[in-house]
Amino acid sequence: MQTLHNGKLTRSVSLEDRGWSLGEALFETLLVQQGNPVWLEEHLARLARGCERLQFDFPERALRDDIHQLLSESRDDRAVLRLCLSGDSLGVRGYGAVSRTPHRYCQLAALAPPVRQYWDEGIRAFVAKTRLPEQVELAGIKHSNRLPHVLARAERKARDFPEGLMLSASGLVVEGIASNCFIAVNGELKTPLLDRAGVEGIVRQKVIEVLRTQGVTISEARLTLSDIEAADELFFCNSLIGLWPARQLDCLSFSSFSLCQRVQKELESVWYV
Amino acid sequence: MQTLHNGKLTRSVSLEDRGWSLGEALFETLLVQQGNPVWLEEHLARLARGCERLQFDFPERALRDDIHQLLSESRDDRAVLRLCLSGDSLGVRGYGAVSRTPHRYCQLAALAPPVRQYWDEGIRAFVAKTRLPEQVELAGIKHSNRLPHVLARAERKARDFPEGLMLSASGLVVEGIASNCFIAVNGELKTPLLDRAGVEGIVRQKVIEVLRTQGVTISEARLTLSDIEAADELFFCNSLIGLWPARQLDCLSFSSFSLCQRVQKELESVWYV
Repeated sequence: MQTLHNGKLTRSVSLEDRGWSLGEALFETLLVQQGNPVWLEEHLARLARGCERLQFDFPERALRDDIHQLLSESRDDRAVLRLCLSGDSLGVRGYGAVSRTPHRYCQLAALAPPVRQYWDEGIRAFVAKTRLPEQVELAGIKHSNRLPHVLARAERKARDFPEGLMLSASGLVVEGIASNCFIAVNGELKTPLLDRAGVEGIVRQKVIEVLRTQGVTISEARLTLSDIEAADELFFCNSLIGLWPARQLDCLSFSSFSLCQRVQKELESVWYV
Repeated sequence: MQTLHNGKLTRSVSLEDRGWSLGEALFETLLVQQGNPVWLEEHLARLARGCERLQFDFPERALRDDIHQLLSESRDDRAVLRLCLSGDSLGVRGYGAVSRTPHRYCQLAALAPPVRQYWDEGIRAFVAKTRLPEQVELAGIKHSNRLPHVLARAERKARDFPEGLMLSASGLVVEGIASNCFIAVNGELKTPLLDRAGVEGIVRQKVIEVLRTQGVTISEARLTLSDIEAADELFFCNSLIGLWPARQLDCLSFSSFSLCQRVQKELESVWYV
C-alpha cells in the first residue's frame, strides 16, 4: 500500500490529525480498474458535500494531483483507492476547529477480485443487533464515525454472513454494514430514505439510474423489517463488491434475484473486466 | 507534547490505526497536578469498561508503565495526560477486526490553569442545535466518534459561550459538549441518565459522591429542556475545567450557584493547588 499525506509519501498519520483524535474525517473508497478510478467524479462530489457539512475547504485540485501521482506509479490491474480528509488540530486541544484546511490522505492498495459466487448465487445476510444512530447533520455523507458498523461486523463472521442489515435506533432499515440495500416488491424497487442515517452510495445511485432507464418504478422510503419480510428480493451494493443478492436474511429466504440481475447485466463490466 | 506509541516515543500515528480510519478508539483525558494524574484509577476503570464494549484486551500494566515513564520525565506542574486505545488493522481492509490488541497512545502536554472567572462567576452557555445520537451500545463510554461534539462546538465561539448543552436525537438533555451537567431543583440534584448517550464522567461521579455525603437527594433522570427551565441552577463539570456554574443558557438566567459551590468548596484543591 502506498499513502500520500498532503501529496508526499508517508508511512504514518500526523499526531495533529483530528480524524484520529476525534473522528473528524471523511473518506471515500474507490475501485480502480486498469488504472482508472471508477466513478471518480461522483466520489469527489460526495466528498465535497461532506466537506460542506464539516466546514472543510475542499482541496479538489490537490486531490486530483495526488490520485494522478499514485495511479501513474501503480502497476496493479485492480486496486482500491482510499481518499481521506481529516481535520487538523494545529496543536490546539478541544473540539473547536482552528483550521478549515483538512489533512489529505490518498492510499492505493492492490485488491483481490470480488467473489463471483456471491454475485451469482447470492449471500446469507443477518439483521445486526447494533443500531445506527439517527443524526440529520451527518446523514448521507461518508464520515469516519464508524463504530456502529464495526460493532455490527463483529456480531457475525463475514465468512458465514458476508453482509449484515443495519436498522436505525428507531427501527428503520438503513443500509448494509458496508453497503446500501434495495428491495423489490411486485416488480418495483425500494431503497431506504437516507435523511436520518446511512451513506448515499455511489453504486446506489447507479442502480437507481439503470433501473429508472428501464422503466422500473423506484422509491426512497422509510422501510422496516416488515417491508423486507414482504419483499420478493433483497440486494446489497457497494463500490468494491458490486451487487450481492441475498438468498437468506436470518430465517428469511429469497428466491428471486430478478431486478438485481438486470442491474448486474448492465454493470457487470465494472467489476468483471 | 510527548507521545508514546506502545511505549516508544513517536511523532506520528500508525497507518494501521483503526481509530484514524474507522473511529475505532477510546480515550481518556486526565488532569496532572504536581506530577500526579488525578483520579487515575477511575479513568482506567472507565477505559476498561470501554475495552469490554469494543472487544479490546485492556493493556492495564503497559498503560501504567507508559504513564510512569511520561510523568517521570516531565517537569510541568500542571499538565494534561491523554490515553488512547485504538484498533489495529494489521493491514486488513474492512470493518471486521483481526486483532484484540489495541494500539496504546499516551500523550502528555503542558496545560494552562483553568479560568478562575468561569469557576467563580459562571459562564454563558447555549443549547446546541446538533443532537447527540442515541446508541445503547456506546452510551457511557468515552469513544472517539466525536463528530457531533465537533459540530456542536462549531455552532458558537468558545470565547463567548465556553460550553453548550447537548440534547439527544429524541430531545433528552445529555451533557455539555465537553462536560457533564447537573441541575438543582428545590435543593435536590438531578443529572441526565446516560443509558442512551453521553459519557459517564469521572468528575460527575465525584460530584454525586460529595453531595450524597452531605445528605443531598440526587437522582439520574430523563431530563428535557423544560426541566432545565424549571431549575434553580445548572452547572457543568469535567476533569480539566472542574466545575462551571451557568449564569445563562441562551435567554435563561440562573442566579443560584449554591449546590455547585458546595462541591467547589470540597474539590477546589483538585484544580487550584
